[in-house]
Amino acid sequence: MNFGMIRFILCQVMRIEGLLLILPFVVSLAYNEKAGLYYLALALILFVAGSIGCFFKPKDTVIYFKESCVATSMSWILLSIFGCLPFVITGEIADFNDALFETISGFTTTGASILSDVESLSHTALFWRSFTHWIGGMGVLVFLLAVIPMSGGSNINLMRAESPGPSVGKLVPKLKQTARILYIIYFILTVIEIILLILGGMSVFDSICLSCGTAGTGGFGIRNDSFASYSTYVKWVAAVFMVLFGTNFNAFYFITLRQIKKALAMEEVRFFLGFVFCSTVIIFLNVMPSYATAGSAATDSFFTVTSLVSSTGFASCDFDVWPMNAKLILVLCMTIGACAGSTGGGFKVSRVLILLKTLRKELSSFIHPKIVRKVTMDGKSIEHEIIRSVNVYLVTFLSVFVISTLFISIDNNDMETTLTAVLATLNNIGPGMGKVGPTCNYAFFSVFSKYVLMIDMLAGRLELFPILMLFHPQLYKGLFKGLKMP
Amino acid sequence: MNFGMIRFILCQVMRIEGLLLILPFVVSLAYNEKAGLYYLALALILFVAGSIGCFFKPKDTVIYFKESCVATSMSWILLSIFGCLPFVITGEIADFNDALFETISGFTTTGASILSDVESLSHTALFWRSFTHWIGGMGVLVFLLAVIPMSGGSNINLMRAESPGPSVGKLVPKLKQTARILYIIYFILTVIEIILLILGGMSVFDSICLSCGTAGTGGFGIRNDSFASYSTYVKWVAAVFMVLFGTNFNAFYFITLRQIKKALAMEEVRFFLGFVFCSTVIIFLNVMPSYATAGSAATDSFFTVTSLVSSTGFASCDFDVWPMNAKLILVLCMTIGACAGSTGGGFKVSRVLILLKTLRKELSSFIHPKIVRKVTMDGKSIEHEIIRSVNVYLVTFLSVFVISTLFISIDNNDMETTLTAVLATLNNIGPGMGKVGPTCNYAFFSVFSKYVLMIDMLAGRLELFPILMLFHPQLYKGLFKGLKMP
Repeated sequence: MNFGMIRFILCQVMRIEGLLLILPFVVSLAYNEKAGLYYLALALILFVAGSIGCFFKPKDTVIYFKESCVATSMSWILLSIFGCLPFVITGEIADFNDALFETISGFTTTGASILSDVESLSHTALFWRSFTHWIGGMGVLVFLLAVIPMSGGSNINLMRAESPGPSVGKLVPKLKQTARILYIIYFILTVIEIILLILGGMSVFDSICLSCGTAGTGGFGIRNDSFASYSTYVKWVAAVFMVLFGTNFNAFYFITLRQIKKALAMEEVRFFLGFVFCSTVIIFLNVMPSYATAGSAATDSFFTVTSLVSSTGFASCDFDVWPMNAKLILVLCMTIGACAGSTGGGFKVSRVLILLKTLRKELSSFIHPKIVRKVTMDGKSIEHEIIRSVNVYLVTFLSVFVISTLFISIDNNDMETTLTAVLATLNNIGPGMGKVGPTCNYAFFSVFSKYVLMIDMLAGRLELFPILMLFHPQLYKGLFKGLKMP
Repeated sequence: MNFGMIRFILCQVMRIEGLLLILPFVVSLAYNEKAGLYYLALALILFVAGSIGCFFKPKDTVIYFKESCVATSMSWILLSIFGCLPFVITGEIADFNDALFETISGFTTTGASILSDVESLSHTALFWRSFTHWIGGMGVLVFLLAVIPMSGGSNINLMRAESPGPSVGKLVPKLKQTARILYIIYFILTVIEIILLILGGMSVFDSICLSCGTAGTGGFGIRNDSFASYSTYVKWVAAVFMVLFGTNFNAFYFITLRQIKKALAMEEVRFFLGFVFCSTVIIFLNVMPSYATAGSAATDSFFTVTSLVSSTGFASCDFDVWPMNAKLILVLCMTIGACAGSTGGGFKVSRVLILLKTLRKELSSFIHPKIVRKVTMDGKSIEHEIIRSVNVYLVTFLSVFVISTLFISIDNNDMETTLTAVLATLNNIGPGMGKVGPTCNYAFFSVFSKYVLMIDMLAGRLELFPILMLFHPQLYKGLFKGLKMP
């Protein structure tokens, strides 16, 4: 185990968090809120401590997948622990467990809240809360790769541990360049959304917060009713951007290269858009009778589908009261989730696509056993190794889901609440159904359940394995060996 | 497509059903019920028609997996259609759809009923209902293989299409011999249960019906409260036999060869028994506070776990009112199901075991990437092909589950009812939770939903692919080709 390198990465992350905490301080200046001083103090402490910690660069900068996983999960845990301190110190979320839940929910872009009244929060806290979504959306280690010179080809392992999807898409041969391109696309799209929301008459503060929440596919709102009281224009802008941020960023890269056809030809993107369209239509037909106008029914159907399939979790209405057919379509949206290589969570469209393609191949081979078929995507045949890893991911996903629901069920809530609470945290969505529906929050869970859900949020954001490995006894065997023979 | 052979197999199945229908006629004689004459008439018609139909043996007796699937699913559909006629003609279940539901539920050993008052049925109908479980448990085509001389090695395909589990276990090199051994073990175990129940003071009729229901892991009761009003002794006898019939029959074969150690060393059996034990303990701890004595809590916990994990579905109490933790353990029991090579349904223990082993291997390989590991079971390494087929089965299972719940949800019942109704039929269990809980029945579903659930029951019993293939367009392309070029 390369402890030196893990220490180096963690301290870099602390430094970055220090820098990021300056932004809420700036917000506090604009609104003349004294709480901002705590953010500034924490920023300075983190920056100095981090800088000291990474003053000495380790000699051996090679890290394997194992170390990357440990570094990544530890980074996210530390980020959240430090990130929740302002809430605790200012007393806006006085309970440490609740503040940690809220912050993990923020960084993992889940958006599950323990607050019943967000409107009572200071602007500083509201901004920091939404800004954690933006940081978590593209990933802090990807950011690290983009800005900090790190040697060696082993950095791909870091990106592998943090990026969503069955395979790591390197857009360009150089990893650093890839990370930069991703962040530039991310930044530009966010700015465009901010501008469009401001044009719709929204205040600058609201626009920035909600755009951060959309970009990271997070879902923390700044009003108690989330999106319900905003105008139809705002809802449609947000819905379209939820689709965009749930789309594989490779598509945007192709578009910047003016290869629009190539972008539209991506099977994952087509499947994603098709799925969003079909789900919206079915749900629209389900809910139309309970709406005054077809327009508002269409708005809410489209908004809710895009919000849940992209794992954002904004709510424009109480979809918990919809007919069961609509609700189960939503559960399916929540399960499948967004495209790989997007900021969205969930099982990921490309994985679903690969599994369905293998299934189709299998059924065909029963009927025509002599014809040899290959599973292809975007015209290329999919490597056997990828198919295997997707299958393993499915089994892991189901195992984590089952174990988590069994733990959560000790709280003895109804089945709908128990199942969707786990699904909504593991897939980083936010609201579930029943007692964790869009008009409710997660405050009522026991502390034990909250920690289970926190682990689920982290596990979901980091695609299971980095967090799961922390629970694997063999890791610590290796750890002690590492300590004995440095 | 070898139509001649499919015709031959279907007619043989009709003949067998004709013979089997004589048994309820015998019961009707004992109870002096006139309804028995209808059973006799149907028996004669089926026997004569079947005999005529299979008078000419086809020249080409080779059938591939495709034809086996078609023959198997058609056999089960025909069996059910003819098998439900006595209920319709005698008016005991006057509605054809309901009668078909009840009969498919019988043959597929599901035990989901549309009847609210089974005690009003005639003895003849009660016996036929339970006897369909016994027929369906081991499978009618396995029976065919055991008694009728059929040539060619291609018969393994028939067994493959009807037998549960990821791989077909041939106990002895000869398939016919294997089928016979299986039926002999099945018969002997059933008789032992009948004797033990009679020794417990139960009437001969009740003992036979309930033993048929246990042996096939079916679950049709003959009292309205299922098992609730029977003595503790009877409950424990039934529970133990539910475990036995949910165990891989290979274990019993080893025992008949006095290789008891080999039987107990089977990993699947150990995992199954361990899972039953752990589930019982957790549920016992959950429900104990609501029981007067620890003994009755233990009885109900053990009975319910064995009933659901073996996919039988008898109920000794209303487990729908238990705490959510206990209920979710039961849902897990319902999902995993019994051992492969047993009469039980579900996803099958061996499949779960294989998936968990691949998962463990994967996690280890992250930590020690250089060590090459193989997935083994019972000391032998599992072929890659088996692992692949298990993964495909998982994806198929999930797909069927999702599509079915979406269809069923159109009825707009609560989520618990919708999800567990599909699970309970697809895994051939019977009772689910909520509105399909152990004190309820399936009568309230729409006709459309009932047909979806019927397909689920058949799909579950035949391990998905034979039934799914009937929905595959390529099959019919092949069919027309077959018709053009005979």
